[in-house]
Amino acid sequence: MIVAVCLNPAVDVTYGVDEVVPGGSHRVTTAVRRAGGKGVNVARVLRQLGEPVTLIALHGADPQDVLGRELRADGIRYRPSPVAGEMRQTVTATDGRDVTVFNEPGPVVGADEWRSFVYLFTGLLRRGAVVALSGSLPPGVPGDAYRQLVDVAHTAGAATVVDAAGAALRHSLDAHPEVVKPNAVEAASLLGRPVTTVEDAVAAGRLACELGARSAVVSRGAQGLVAVTPDGAWCAGLPLAITGNPTGAGDALVAALASGLARGLSWPEMLRHSAAVSAAAVAVSHAGAVDIDLVTKLRPLVTVEPI
Amino acid sequence: MIVAVCLNPAVDVTYGVDEVVPGGSHRVTTAVRRAGGKGVNVARVLRQLGEPVTLIALHGADPQDVLGRELRADGIRYRPSPVAGEMRQTVTATDGRDVTVFNEPGPVVGADEWRSFVYLFTGLLRRGAVVALSGSLPPGVPGDAYRQLVDVAHTAGAATVVDAAGAALRHSLDAHPEVVKPNAVEAASLLGRPVTTVEDAVAAGRLACELGARSAVVSRGAQGLVAVTPDGAWCAGLPLAITGNPTGAGDALVAALASGLARGLSWPEMLRHSAAVSAAAVAVSHAGAVDIDLVTKLRPLVTVEPI
Repeated sequence: MIVAVCLNPAVDVTYGVDEVVPGGSHRVTTAVRRAGGKGVNVARVLRQLGEPVTLIALHGADPQDVLGRELRADGIRYRPSPVAGEMRQTVTATDGRDVTVFNEPGPVVGADEWRSFVYLFTGLLRRGAVVALSGSLPPGVPGDAYRQLVDVAHTAGAATVVDAAGAALRHSLDAHPEVVKPNAVEAASLLGRPVTTVEDAVAAGRLACELGARSAVVSRGAQGLVAVTPDGAWCAGLPLAITGNPTGAGDALVAALASGLARGLSWPEMLRHSAAVSAAAVAVSHAGAVDIDLVTKLRPLVTVEPI
Repeated sequence: MIVAVCLNPAVDVTYGVDEVVPGGSHRVTTAVRRAGGKGVNVARVLRQLGEPVTLIALHGADPQDVLGRELRADGIRYRPSPVAGEMRQTVTATDGRDVTVFNEPGPVVGADEWRSFVYLFTGLLRRGAVVALSGSLPPGVPGDAYRQLVDVAHTAGAATVVDAAGAALRHSLDAHPEVVKPNAVEAASLLGRPVTTVEDAVAAGRLACELGARSAVVSRGAQGLVAVTPDGAWCAGLPLAITGNPTGAGDALVAALASGLARGLSWPEMLRHSAAVSAAAVAVSHAGAVDIDLVTKLRPLVTVEPI
C-alpha cells in the first residue's frame, strides 16, 4: 500500500499562444485546466502501474472541484485535508517552442491546518506501507515538513521516498528517508556545484547519503539515473531518447521507485523498472501519466551498470 | 442614466514575478484577483464620476463570485445575463519593467444566450439614456453584436459610445453610433496605415465618420485626443505627462464621453472633461479607477484646440 503526499496541489492552466513575448499581449487560443501538483501526478502514475494508492493533500478551496472530479474519474482514493485558503493555480503558456510557467506559491496554511494534516496522514499509515513525499511546500507549512512526515512514517513502520528541493530536501535528510530523488539541479544545489557528469551525480548522491538518506537516485533527464545505495552504486539509462514532454518524468520516477520499494525489488530491478517508467512518461503530452505499453517495451532495453 | 455593456467580463489575475523570461519557470511572489473586462471598468469609473450607471454583462460561471462581490462592494447596479460556460480569466505577469498579458477568449455563447442578453438589454433602455459598449466579443456572439445593440439603443431613443476593435468596430459603424473611440492601433487598423501624427488621427476619425459614426474620438495615449464631430474637429491634451499605469485609461475615457453625452456637454467641454478623466486614470495603479481629485486639478490644464 502506497500513500502519495501532495502538500501543494494546484489547478494547472495551460494556454496555447502564438509566441511568448515579454511585454506582449497574448491571445490565448486554447485553455486547458487540469489538476496538478507533483504528489497528484505521482498518485496517478501509481494507479496506472496498478498499485493500491491513497493520495492525501492539503486541499484549499477549489470551487470548480477540478482536483476532486479528476481523482474520482481516475478512481484514486483521496483524503483531502482542508485548508481555508484557495488552492493555487499554475499557468503555463506554450507556443510550440518554449514552455513558460508561472507558479503561484499556494495558500497560507495555518498551524492548526498543518496539525490536522499530520493527524490524518498518521491514520493512513500501516507497517510495510511506502510513502511518496513530493513537491513544494505552501507558505505556513514548517520548513522541515518532510522531516516530520518521514519521522511519522518510520514510527508507523512505513518506508519513504522524498522528491524535494532546497531546504525542504535538506531537512528531510535528518529523518533518514529510504530514498531521495533529486534531479540534476536539486543535486547541484545540495552539492554546491553543477551536476553535469556521472561523477558529479555520484558525488551528490553520496553527499545526500552522508547527510542522512539511506539511498539517493539522481535523475539526469535523457541521460538516465545514478543511484547511490547501501547495496552499491549504479547508472541506469536507455540507449535511445524518447521525444515528447519531459514535464512529469520526475513524478513518474518517484512513483516507480515507491512501487519498487513496495514490491521489494532489488536495486538493479528497481532501477530498470524506474528508468522505463520515467521514459514512458515523456511520451505522454501531459504530466501524471505514462504510456503503459511503452513501459513494457522499454524495460528490456534499459542498461543498469554498477559504478 | 447610463448603461455600460460588458460582453466579455473576466477575472483578471495579476502576478508579480522577478523577470518574465520565455521558457522560464517563474515563482509568483504576489497574486491579485480582480474583476475585469472593459465594460466593467467603464461602469466603475462612471460610478466614481457620480453617474447613475447600470452594468449589464454576459455572465459565465464565476464560482468564487469575484465579479458579483466587487460590484456589490462598489455599489454598482448589475444585471448579469447568464452564460453556461465559465467566465474567462486574464493573466498578467508584471516584473516592474514589462507587463505581459495572456487573454483567454471567453466562454462560447449560445444563440439563445445571446438572444436573452439582447432582451435583457432592451429592457434597461430609456429615452435619453446613454449606452457605453466596450471590449472584445466572446466566441459565439455575432460579429455584428455592437451594430445590433446600437440599433436597439437607437430604437429606444438612447445614444451610444462604442469602444471596439477590428471587425466589431467596423460592423458597429453601420448603425451610426454617436461616438466611436478607437485608440491609435485600432484607428490604424481602420485606416489601413499607421496613425502616428495628429493628421493621421484626423484622417482615421474622418473615415470612421464617413463609414457611419456620428463622431470619432481617437485616443493617442499621452499625446492626447483627436475628435472629429459634426460641430468641428479638435485636439485635446495636457501640457504634462502623468506617470503610472496607462491600462484602463481608454476605459476611463469611454466613461467620460458617456458621462458628457448624458449631461449634454458641448464637444469642447466634453473633451476637456474626457482628457482630464483619462489622464487621472493613469495615476491609479489598476484599471477601472481614476484619481478623482486629480480630475478636478487637471481639467483647467487641458488644452482644446480646433483643427
